Amino acid sequence: MTTLVSNIGLLVAADGERRNAALVIDDDRIAWIGESASAPAADTRVDAEGGCVIPGFVDTHSHLMFAGDRASEFEARMAGRKYEAGGIRSTVAATRAATDEELLANATRLVAEMRAQGTTTVEIKSGYGLTVEDESRALRLATQFTPETTYLGAHVVPTEFADDVAAYVELVTGAMLDACAPHARWIDVFCEVGAFDVDQARAILTAGMARGLGARMHAGQLGESAGVQLAVELDAASVDHCTFLSDVDVDALAGGKTVATLLPGVEFSTRQPYPDARRLLDSGVTVALATDCNPGSSFTSSMPFCIAVAVREMGMSPAEALHAATAGGAAALRRDDIGELAVGTRADLVILDAPSYIHLAYRPGVPLISRVFAS
Amino acid sequence: MTTLVSNIGLLVAADGERRNAALVIDDDRIAWIGESASAPAADTRVDAEGGCVIPGFVDTHSHLMFAGDRASEFEARMAGRKYEAGGIRSTVAATRAATDEELLANATRLVAEMRAQGTTTVEIKSGYGLTVEDESRALRLATQFTPETTYLGAHVVPTEFADDVAAYVELVTGAMLDACAPHARWIDVFCEVGAFDVDQARAILTAGMARGLGARMHAGQLGESAGVQLAVELDAASVDHCTFLSDVDVDALAGGKTVATLLPGVEFSTRQPYPDARRLLDSGVTVALATDCNPGSSFTSSMPFCIAVAVREMGMSPAEALHAATAGGAAALRRDDIGELAVGTRADLVILDAPSYIHLAYRPGVPLISRVFAS
Repeated sequence: MTTLVSNIGLLVAADGERRNAALVIDDDRIAWIGESASAPAADTRVDAEGGCVIPGFVDTHSHLMFAGDRASEFEARMAGRKYEAGGIRSTVAATRAATDEELLANATRLVAEMRAQGTTTVEIKSGYGLTVEDESRALRLATQFTPETTYLGAHVVPTEFADDVAAYVELVTGAMLDACAPHARWIDVFCEVGAFDVDQARAILTAGMARGLGARMHAGQLGESAGVQLAVELDAASVDHCTFLSDVDVDALAGGKTVATLLPGVEFSTRQPYPDARRLLDSGVTVALATDCNPGSSFTSSMPFCIAVAVREMGMSPAEALHAATAGGAAALRRDDIGELAVGTRADLVILDAPSYIHLAYRPGVPLISRVFAS
Repeated sequence: MTTLVSNIGLLVAADGERRNAALVIDDDRIAWIGESASAPAADTRVDAEGGCVIPGFVDTHSHLMFAGDRASEFEARMAGRKYEAGGIRSTVAATRAATDEELLANATRLVAEMRAQGTTTVEIKSGYGLTVEDESRALRLATQFTPETTYLGAHVVPTEFADDVAAYVELVTGAMLDACAPHARWIDVFCEVGAFDVDQARAILTAGMARGLGARMHAGQLGESAGVQLAVELDAASVDHCTFLSDVDVDALAGGKTVATLLPGVEFSTRQPYPDARRLLDSGVTVALATDCNPGSSFTSSMPFCIAVAVREMGMSPAEALHAATAGGAAALRRDDIGELAVGTRADLVILDAPSYIHLAYRPGVPLISRVFAS
């Protein structure tokens, strides 16, 4: 089954931008890229009507396995209350109380929302269960949506372990890991004041890596953190947030393969200062953009919104922001089959109702996703 | 023909917020509001599925009669080039060169985009023609979309009058006004360095008012301007931008009926500082929010986006931002039939795919408009 996408005004291909282009999809892969005028025949044909075609967005940071919302907390924060990591616990209570069906229905709705906004790969974390049963349940359910599942038992210390964090770390690296590893590709830890310190983070990630999971980390959201250098030292695929970075952190990132994943929805929704993407790019660090979709600190599911904010606030050009939201995300998942459009990559792509990807920032908030192909 | 909208989780009515509500639309008006459980029968029935129902957005500032786009200028600006009012002239050239059909097709697309995002009343300005023929053409075409048309011959001084601004003001207040007044409800002037000074603005607005047009003004976008006080003195319905205001300006606004219409899409897209809505609200000034949809300084058509930015950046609560985007807009058009939901008002309303209007700010960038009713 082949599909010709013709009349592409601007194609953002791996080897550069092409005008008046076309491409052929064969099953789940791109089989041909070239000029629209010389396109081969195919079983079906889609007219891009002069629109821009870009790779599907790769959203590498989301927390979709949850119940409840925190609209009141958001409203209070906008009236001046400070954001603290502890708010996570209210979602933990709601998530534990939810049925499998409720968790699936909520995630189904959000994944569909993401897809409609151009996201073709999504990573989903656990982290609102914080018991052996609830964490493994979340991951088991998450595998219905994506292979990119992340075990985040170390999201926050649950109330019942508040007086014995060491015992919780032992659980996370022991019985909980045993139950979760079969359903996860990645392990992650929230390394931040109010969550886990750098020694605990090291213990958690190395335990997961010993079980074959890849490492990821939350660090530098609320202040500078030794977690960033630990992530590089452990060759984590990504360290996420990176809002506060020392020069030593930036040098470490530039010297390693760990991607800096920036989450502007968080800063938008918590009124924190934005991360400085320009500094990272100028230092040679690979940058990704992701939504961090979660009911507490960033309830956006929109990669176009994140791109617009990254251009307004973080010193990225529209081209750099698009690259971070696609190829950057692929690098943060250590994938070479997604995030760019070339012969042989997966047929994950988006037709925009706009002549250029610049419009994702130039027309903020406007739904510009005309059609999404996901392999 | 009556329609019952039932199962409204939260109804934002003129007399306050109601839970588990319903309303009945009779032709173009709201005929009944009450509890969902005691709703009367109607010819058709729409289930809001527990979503929030709000008034349709009233977008009182747009420049939809244009041709071309300025994506390259936007890209250059994001790379550091400063915004200047003179960029308007490149759209003037494209607009003059466009056919009626091209202008109508572009505006049709943008009005549909606005409607899909919940806008049920839109004001449309001329201002990219700047000749008698091109300004009157723009307004004649704009009347196909809305009764809220605004003559903005005084948008910028066209190149051909650069050496004789007085002659252009004479044209705007003479032959151009004669040709445009039959197609316009309002007259507007861009009172700013690089456009028109306060004496010219006074001459232009008073000439329009003498022909029965209501007064509006652009002022305080790029710096403080005596235009704000002039707008209040002339009892203009609205003074738009208000990014830079002196204490005397705020006092003048608080003492008059002129609405301060804030346009956060402009600051987002030009990297200017945001207007301080909090200061205006605390002083008792009526505030409206609008998109300023135009290809130069703010190419968003999204009122939800403007609400989200107003909450993040301008000190408004979600409730205040919603009010500004609905009732505030109605006040800025001196209308009492739109912008709020009560028995007798127009049946312009939006069902959100969310339990509360808070989600318009809490879920930035996410398309939450489930269904739009426009009378």
